[in-house]
Amino acid sequence: GFAKLDHHRKLRSGFGEVVYCSGKSTEHLIKIFQSFNEKKVDILGTRATKEQFQAVKAIVEEAEYDELSRIIKVVRSDIKKIGLIAVCTGGTSDIPVAEEAAQTAEFFGSNVMRIHDVGVAGIHRLFSKMEEINKANVIVAVAGMEGTLPGVIAGLVDKPVIAVPTSVGYGSNFNGLSALLTMLNSCAEGISVVNIDNGFGAGYLGTQINRLAVKGSE
Amino acid sequence: GFAKLDHHRKLRSGFGEVVYCSGKSTEHLIKIFQSFNEKKVDILGTRATKEQFQAVKAIVEEAEYDELSRIIKVVRSDIKKIGLIAVCTGGTSDIPVAEEAAQTAEFFGSNVMRIHDVGVAGIHRLFSKMEEINKANVIVAVAGMEGTLPGVIAGLVDKPVIAVPTSVGYGSNFNGLSALLTMLNSCAEGISVVNIDNGFGAGYLGTQINRLAVKGSE
Amino acid sequence: GFAKLDHHRKLRSGFGEVVYCSGKSTEHLIKIFQSFNEKKVDILGTRATKEQFQAVKAIVEEAEYDELSRIIKVVRSDIKKIGLIAVCTGGTSDIPVAEEAAQTAEFFGSNVMRIHDVGVAGIHRLFSKMEEINKANVIVAVAGMEGTLPGVIAGLVDKPVIAVPTSVGYGSNFNGLSALLTMLNSCAEGISVVNIDNGFGAGYLGTQINRLAVKGSE
Amino acid sequence: GFAKLDHHRKLRSGFGEVVYCSGKSTEHLIKIFQSFNEKKVDILGTRATKEQFQAVKAIVEEAEYDELSRIIKVVRSDIKKIGLIAVCTGGTSDIPVAEEAAQTAEFFGSNVMRIHDVGVAGIHRLFSKMEEINKANVIVAVAGMEGTLPGVIAGLVDKPVIAVPTSVGYGSNFNGLSALLTMLNSCAEGISVVNIDNGFGAGYLGTQINRLAVKGSE
Amino acid sequence: GFAKLDHHRKLRSGFGEVVYCSGKSTEHLIKIFQSFNEKKVDILGTRATKEQFQAVKAIVEEAEYDELSRIIKVVRSDIKKIGLIAVCTGGTSDIPVAEEAAQTAEFFGSNVMRIHDVGVAGIHRLFSKMEEINKANVIVAVAGMEGTLPGVIAGLVDKPVIAVPTSVGYGSNFNGLSALLTMLNSCAEGISVVNIDNGFGAGYLGTQINRLAVKGSE
Amino acid sequence: GFAKLDHHRKLRSGFGEVVYCSGKSTEHLIKIFQSFNEKKVDILGTRATKEQFQAVKAIVEEAEYDELSRIIKVVRSDIKKIGLIAVCTGGTSDIPVAEEAAQTAEFFGSNVMRIHDVGVAGIHRLFSKMEEINKANVIVAVAGMEGTLPGVIAGLVDKPVIAVPTSVGYGSNFNGLSALLTMLNSCAEGISVVNIDNGFGAGYLGTQINRLAVKGSE
Amino acid sequence: GFAKLDHHRKLRSGFGEVVYCSGKSTEHLIKIFQSFNEKKVDILGTRATKEQFQAVKAIVEEAEYDELSRIIKVVRSDIKKIGLIAVCTGGTSDIPVAEEAAQTAEFFGSNVMRIHDVGVAGIHRLFSKMEEINKANVIVAVAGMEGTLPGVIAGLVDKPVIAVPTSVGYGSNFNGLSALLTMLNSCAEGISVVNIDNGFGAGYLGTQINRLAVKGSE
Amino acid sequence: GFAKLDHHRKLRSGFGEVVYCSGKSTEHLIKIFQSFNEKKVDILGTRATKEQFQAVKAIVEEAEYDELSRIIKVVRSDIKKIGLIAVCTGGTSDIPVAEEAAQTAEFFGSNVMRIHDVGVAGIHRLFSKMEEINKANVIVAVAGMEGTLPGVIAGLVDKPVIAVPTSVGYGSNFNGLSALLTMLNSCAEGISVVNIDNGFGAGYLGTQINRLAVKGSE
Ligand SMILES: Nc1ncnc2c1ncn2[C@@H]1O[C@H](COP(=O)(O)O)[C@@H](O)[C@H]1O
Ligand SMILES: Nc1ncnc2c1ncn2[C@@H]1O[C@H](COP(=O)(O)O)[C@@H](O)[C@H]1O
Ligand SMILES: Nc1ncnc2c1ncn2[C@@H]1O[C@H](COP(=O)(O)O)[C@@H](O)[C@H]1O
Ligand SMILES: Nc1ncnc2c1ncn2[C@@H]1O[C@H](COP(=O)(O)O)[C@@H](O)[C@H]1O
Ligand SMILES: [Mg+2]
Ligand SMILES: [Mg+2]
Ligand SMILES: [Mg+2]
Ligand SMILES: [Mg+2]
Ligand SMILES: [Mg+2]
Ligand SMILES: [Mg+2]
Ligand SMILES: [Mg+2]
Ligand SMILES: [Mg+2]
Repeated sequence: GFAKLDHHRKLRSGFGEVVYCSGKSTEHLIKIFQSFNEKKVDILGTRATKEQFQAVKAIVEEAEYDELSRIIKVVRSDIKKIGLIAVCTGGTSDIPVAEEAAQTAEFFGSNVMRIHDVGVAGIHRLFSKMEEINKANVIVAVAGMEGTLPGVIAGLVDKPVIAVPTSVGYGSNFNGLSALLTMLNSCAEGISVVNIDNGFGAGYLGTQINRLAVKGSE
Repeated sequence: GFAKLDHHRKLRSGFGEVVYCSGKSTEHLIKIFQSFNEKKVDILGTRATKEQFQAVKAIVEEAEYDELSRIIKVVRSDIKKIGLIAVCTGGTSDIPVAEEAAQTAEFFGSNVMRIHDVGVAGIHRLFSKMEEINKANVIVAVAGMEGTLPGVIAGLVDKPVIAVPTSVGYGSNFNGLSALLTMLNSCAEGISVVNIDNGFGAGYLGTQINRLAVKGSE
Repeated sequence: GFAKLDHHRKLRSGFGEVVYCSGKSTEHLIKIFQSFNEKKVDILGTRATKEQFQAVKAIVEEAEYDELSRIIKVVRSDIKKIGLIAVCTGGTSDIPVAEEAAQTAEFFGSNVMRIHDVGVAGIHRLFSKMEEINKANVIVAVAGMEGTLPGVIAGLVDKPVIAVPTSVGYGSNFNGLSALLTMLNSCAEGISVVNIDNGFGAGYLGTQINRLAVKGSE
Repeated sequence: GFAKLDHHRKLRSGFGEVVYCSGKSTEHLIKIFQSFNEKKVDILGTRATKEQFQAVKAIVEEAEYDELSRIIKVVRSDIKKIGLIAVCTGGTSDIPVAEEAAQTAEFFGSNVMRIHDVGVAGIHRLFSKMEEINKANVIVAVAGMEGTLPGVIAGLVDKPVIAVPTSVGYGSNFNGLSALLTMLNSCAEGISVVNIDNGFGAGYLGTQINRLAVKGSE
Repeated sequence: GFAKLDHHRKLRSGFGEVVYCSGKSTEHLIKIFQSFNEKKVDILGTRATKEQFQAVKAIVEEAEYDELSRIIKVVRSDIKKIGLIAVCTGGTSDIPVAEEAAQTAEFFGSNVMRIHDVGVAGIHRLFSKMEEINKANVIVAVAGMEGTLPGVIAGLVDKPVIAVPTSVGYGSNFNGLSALLTMLNSCAEGISVVNIDNGFGAGYLGTQINRLAVKGSE
Repeated sequence: GFAKLDHHRKLRSGFGEVVYCSGKSTEHLIKIFQSFNEKKVDILGTRATKEQFQAVKAIVEEAEYDELSRIIKVVRSDIKKIGLIAVCTGGTSDIPVAEEAAQTAEFFGSNVMRIHDVGVAGIHRLFSKMEEINKANVIVAVAGMEGTLPGVIAGLVDKPVIAVPTSVGYGSNFNGLSALLTMLNSCAEGISVVNIDNGFGAGYLGTQINRLAVKGSE
Repeated sequence: GFAKLDHHRKLRSGFGEVVYCSGKSTEHLIKIFQSFNEKKVDILGTRATKEQFQAVKAIVEEAEYDELSRIIKVVRSDIKKIGLIAVCTGGTSDIPVAEEAAQTAEFFGSNVMRIHDVGVAGIHRLFSKMEEINKANVIVAVAGMEGTLPGVIAGLVDKPVIAVPTSVGYGSNFNGLSALLTMLNSCAEGISVVNIDNGFGAGYLGTQINRLAVKGSE
Repeated sequence: GFAKLDHHRKLRSGFGEVVYCSGKSTEHLIKIFQSFNEKKVDILGTRATKEQFQAVKAIVEEAEYDELSRIIKVVRSDIKKIGLIAVCTGGTSDIPVAEEAAQTAEFFGSNVMRIHDVGVAGIHRLFSKMEEINKANVIVAVAGMEGTLPGVIAGLVDKPVIAVPTSVGYGSNFNGLSALLTMLNSCAEGISVVNIDNGFGAGYLGTQINRLAVKGSE
């Protein structure tokens, strides 16, 4: 049978379901939240507008919204956080994407350390934080424009670095393409990349690695 | 001081140095190998031609060459392998890149399980292997053409999946762009991507994660 | 003479005319609908805004509008449906494009089976539907983001699969380019591709093939 | 069980296996041909070099090679051909891709009509052939450079048109991108597209549709 | 001296000046129109919004606006029209760009014949107009989506064809790129291309050629 | 009937046929030349290799080859040249493409003036030639790298300028894309563009315009 | 220590701080301005909206706003200007970007000469200004559409030319890509390029070079 | 007259002429070198093959060749070097491009300091060199792959940084596009970019700035 196909829910088990809200009709979204709500699980909604949140709130009272990361959260369980993930940004404009990563990681049970505005234009700011960053099991490095930060960090630590390019920038940035290519071509070791602006993916993967570090493969 | 900057050598410590051979002149390459050789460390040379190997062999007798992965290896130490990494390919044409990943991982001390030709065009071949794949701490999934494999695997396991697009294909494949975009846009959870044909990067990162799973963050 | 040039109207004969509404001025659109309306044929308008519909409705009372697919329909004849087309989607966000395909196919006289949200991120949902899907003469597979669905289905059936990439996604999705390339590079057999978001084209072509299956080439 | 997964071999059943030869090592290729040969099935090898053929010939005596289409064929069974597929080209330089389509279709049991050099630069050549083309159940239209042919044909027939862009051209042709985009954006009805230079895919899909026309869905 | 540099004004002499309005501030635009107005020359303003027109109208009473082509015209002289230019469109959505071409040509003194909606999806409509089109000295062929029209016309006439790609379309049309590439790669003889949506450029160049045909090089 | 479809041969009538040699097999090429040769018409072969020429020469004794432009010419008639076309290049590396244009124009009966190496890096060289250039009925301006020349010339003359981008350059030149875009976006009036390296197309179109200037539309 | 890392503040010392306002939340922006304001330094805010300015003005009374360049300035010190930078534009639509450059240069202490609308479509306008332009130590050349201006100027002066591509244009301009590529591929000597629309970067770099010319390396 | 147009030769005066050798025929190249040689000026030939050098050597005995930078030099005058330019590389594979820059700068009279292999993957190597780098008037920073080096240096110095992307890398590097975009999008101040692999342009511009620093604008 397909029993093993269900294993992929293991990480989430007891932690809640995920809904990608962007572009879903209100009618549709409500139906999804309602059906999850009935199961009394925790729910994480990503890329939600304020209007979508208000529609959800009307039927799921516990729902909360974070404008910066555009995340809807329904948390009823008592989430126990383990290990440590460092979430770093190149500039303050990258914070929304970083918060999507950080809050996703926290939702799935990781401790998160936030370190903002340490881009290479003023690299000394980064160095003063390296000791702290080195304490994390995995680093999520978020950067727009030329997207250099993840590669520089990966050259300074020996933990996995998850690079998140953002669409912050203009002109030949081409909506994040520049940062994406920078990260894919990084010659530092121990770096991999997720989609442009995909904080969720980085927070989820970061949690998977953080767990392996804390609990091993069990 | 900059002592902490040297921490990033920790992973390699006692395991050898890495040389990116592609495009280096023979003269240059020999100098680099010689200087490492004097330190009596292990050495991994990637993307080497047969001619480059022969030049190296002439001065470092222990050097070995693998034509498939184009890797030069100088191994004198007794590499102890731990944990488990699964290296999977979509088709047989992806094997050279997969071997670069596998041999890199082994060089740095990971056990590797090779599972070839399980692309989605015949998806039942993949399913019959899922139980085995699930035993690994991390999966390196290598695929060209449409590059679907990593996303399908990530949907079936809850371990980190490192996706490696290859340049295998023709026409609108655009030398691996198609597979790269597929992997970056995967809506499965727990997946991240390295550069096209970058088996080395995947093997290195896989080892970092594999170690975290076996040894924790220490 | 050019008599044979008119053969290409054969398929539509008795089924109505098609109007591509997007970007047409109201004045223009009304003129086109009016002239078709005088011929008392059925009319299918694609990519219509609500405002365009209201303008059409004012002069063609029988006109109906479907907000999801953005289709205007004027159906006076008694459409007899034959055969079977399966219209499948990867996620719920792909439904608008899928509905354009489904309603186009129905307008031209095909039975349509709708199977939604069977994307590969949860591939077991697809497998439980395969027996049903196999009953169709042709499959229209609609998917955004990484666009894997059509290739996976084509690997499981031996009917023609018409792949429809959608612009659902963000970042390196590049408005559907990612899904488009995935589908063009699929190494499964029996798959072909239409333009990004072109549900109409898939529904029309699906009907052509469905008819061949039911009636042969006559 | 996965028994149904094997259904997708139905089309080929009794007709032989397919090998994508491009980029495979001789050693590898021989192993694959040998294992198929032992099953005494027919074999179709695509994108094979002359050197690859010679290596295959040495172990499978019945193997034949067509330089134009770069196809290796091992045919022992008595292939019964049904229905009709028209394979048309815009120019003589597109013939190699067209032959890959035609010979694939014949290998899988379709009758094929070849109509070459009917590109729109001299459109009267096309018109004089339309009556003949109209007799086919499905048309494979192969064109490079601006890639107009499939759209023009689709405007003149009401049978499915499978468009095959080729890499023939130079400059802003960008190795077939120009023809590919032309075909994807065709506003004629009843057209779909395969990868650049993918004659095999078109021949296979054409056969699927041709069978439906002759035998129905059975 | 630079006297010869002024020769390039010859064409326009007595016919008016041209202003590219798009993106200019109202303040700026008014200053330009005012200074031309004082010279009592005719003025052609392209890509103007309705708001820009109203601001101009307030200070240049003779100004007229055409919403379709977004052209502002100030015509005081008695424009004598010569020769003949055919302006053809593939679909009705291309008419705004075609009108920019047609009105530019008329402003500079060419007779213009408009032939709309003769795209290749219904190629018989084009053929019934070929005799008329052949009477022109030069053809401006405007088309979006796959952009086939100019190449087909160039294959049927021996007059220069100026191809104008439009941004009409969606998906892999990429805002006119598809039509642009089609036209650049046309294998018909006697065709050249201007920028996407550049009706003005086509109308101006068409007039240059039309004049050569009527008056020779003088 | 389609009699009018043959009108498009008018330009060539008595001037010979054209063969695009690139990528054609020797066998194929010879067949084409032989059949034209029997009609005793003049023949122009473009993009021919030296090997192709030798094969042609063996059967058509009058054939001549120009290595620079890669043109094969078979001229038996007494070509009478009229009017004047100026063929200008930005740098000496653009001369092969310019020669393809010049020799095509001469083959079809135009007088050609060659003006080389007048690119804008040393713009005074261009100015000293402007008086001469102004005598031509039409200018073919050939340039690689940044491709500025055609726009500068178009700003200085009031004759049609046919811009030919070449693939000369490196890096972000992207095989001629840079020059192509420059020319398409030129804000000078009276300019249109052909494909990258398409000297033939420019020479043919130039001749059409040159004839109109000399003979009018007849 | 990292003392030397602070050297890069030298240029600004006593001249003020820079804030990239685009995309920053009002809350965030105010915090940054407030903290700089307390240090009583001069402040330059780039890419600011009018709304952002009003929020800043409410807390920093000395703030001024320039709508054209979208710059917020807080200048309390007595800026002494030295040397000379020429800021030239191809067309009037490029003036906003040019003003960002000019005002940045003035803010950091350079004299600026503005020379507008000297694009190559009317190249005599440029020549009449060359004597003046030659007096500057460095030239900032701003151009959209085909972006020819910087290369032409660089061919006429022997001072460094900083090329600024703008996003002015449409169609195959691709939001400034065309001008960017033109400038990168310029074969004139002494030219380098900044990001599309990056007036700030050009004004800053121009000041660095202007200072070297006036003060040497000290 | 055009006397002022000759000013742009000022920099070179007494220093020699430049020949771009790539793609030039031997015949052509020899003619150019011969004519320069007669004037007894120094000559710099860039992008020359060894074969081209040998042909030149046969007629200009003083010619020398550097295989690494592919530069031909004919130096007879006594070049006096002034000031200082730092030429830095990210990796050893970037050295050929860096040498083209360094030797160009030396040819035109600049002192050059070479600092290799200081890419950010091991950023401490860069820091140990910063004091030295800070002594230069201008920095040429050469990097391939992700191209981070120039931005990091620009963040640490307040001298102009000329960024040179190289085509070193593979996969999504797209022949230098990745490094180019990184550099154009750098948020460090005081950086500008030349074409991919354009060492010559950087060396020339560097010399212009170096002279300004040493001699002022005179
Ligand atoms: N922000 C995000 N970016 C990419 N994928 C996401 C995001 N949020 C959720 N997902 C994925 O999308 C899936 C849910 O999609 P849906 O069923 O359409 O709500 C989840 O299982 C996640 O894997
Ligand atoms: N949504 C669509 N996408 C692509 N083509 C369409 C669509 N709807 C209609 N068409 C085609 O456009 C033609 C009508 O175009 P028009 O004459 O502009 O209304 C129809 O004959 C169809 O072939
Ligand atoms: N318009 C601009 N374009 C590019 N970079 C800029 C611009 N304005 C400021 N910057 C850079 O961005 C930095 C400030 O970024 P932030 O800390 O986000 O305000 C400054 O130090 C400048 O180097
Ligand atoms: N490697 C190079 N890359 C770009 N431009 C170059 C290079 N070498 C020389 N040039 C330029 O090309 C001009 C010489 O071109 P040419 O007349 O074709 O030899 C010189 O004046 C330089 O401006
Ligand atoms: Mg690391
Ligand atoms: Mg998973
Ligand atoms: Mg199938
Ligand atoms: Mg049709
Ligand atoms: Mg023609
Ligand atoms: Mg002109
Ligand atoms: Mg200069
Ligand atoms: Mg700096």
